[in-house]
Amino acid sequence: MADLYFEDFNVGDRFESPGMTITESQIIDFAMQFDPQAFHTNVVEAKDSIFGGLIASGLHTIALTFRLFFMTGVLSNNLGSPGFDDLRWLKPVRPGDTLYSAGEVVEIIPSKKHADRGTIRFRYSSHNQKGETVFTVIGNQILKKRPAA
Amino acid sequence: MADLYFEDFNVGDRFESPGMTITESQIIDFAMQFDPQAFHTNVVEAKDSIFGGLIASGLHTIALTFRLFFMTGVLSNNLGSPGFDDLRWLKPVRPGDTLYSAGEVVEIIPSKKHADRGTIRFRYSSHNQKGETVFTVIGNQILKKRPAA
Repeated sequence: MADLYFEDFNVGDRFESPGMTITESQIIDFAMQFDPQAFHTNVVEAKDSIFGGLIASGLHTIALTFRLFFMTGVLSNNLGSPGFDDLRWLKPVRPGDTLYSAGEVVEIIPSKKHADRGTIRFRYSSHNQKGETVFTVIGNQILKKRPAA
Repeated sequence: MADLYFEDFNVGDRFESPGMTITESQIIDFAMQFDPQAFHTNVVEAKDSIFGGLIASGLHTIALTFRLFFMTGVLSNNLGSPGFDDLRWLKPVRPGDTLYSAGEVVEIIPSKKHADRGTIRFRYSSHNQKGETVFTVIGNQILKKRPAA
């Protein structure tokens, strides 16, 4: 695992995750649990939706993007996140798509209150096997500074 | 089920969901699937985190907020969403908390391109049994207009 602390990040650093193929079962199971809209759960009705077929819940895309990004190990010293901005679903995610996620450092903000941490702003994104960006979001991560030796 | 179309919404309308009690099992299961950080999966290590104990993944809070909100039926004519803004986790969600969600209409934007739909901007939030707001986000929903009779 990478063991990166706040000081180790520079604006422009970019990290890419391994990929994962999303299946019809996963899309329907997640949607039945959290987002039971017909275009996420019902292949018959999804055909008549504006998407022309079954697509993953956007909530599922958010969760998978971070599931994949955690596999990079880059957030191993993450203390938490106060929030995300500018969350956009750009393209549908369909059964059989293979997703990858990435995080690029866009801003580095030392904490004024806590000497042991700071905020790294990442532009997260996920893309599919055709190289199409399907999702982007700006995330604020509070990362630990390296402990004194 | 409510059967609300684009025309039926007014700025200031507010809708509240039923509640749901979140358990330790649910928190750990979701986190092992999508967000395997120790403060979401490990009660021993979570005690030493800045949260002082196990808390739900923020991704889980997002998903549950919408799961609960869908129970209102208010989004039965939702065609999809291009994105969310200003997503904030304000308080930790802990095992045993009971969550409720709400959506308030903050803006109504007819589509210039499609006569059959428009965007409703909702301020979604979720709160716990103590009345503390734990999560807020602005969501853009594309809703169908009522079909011609």
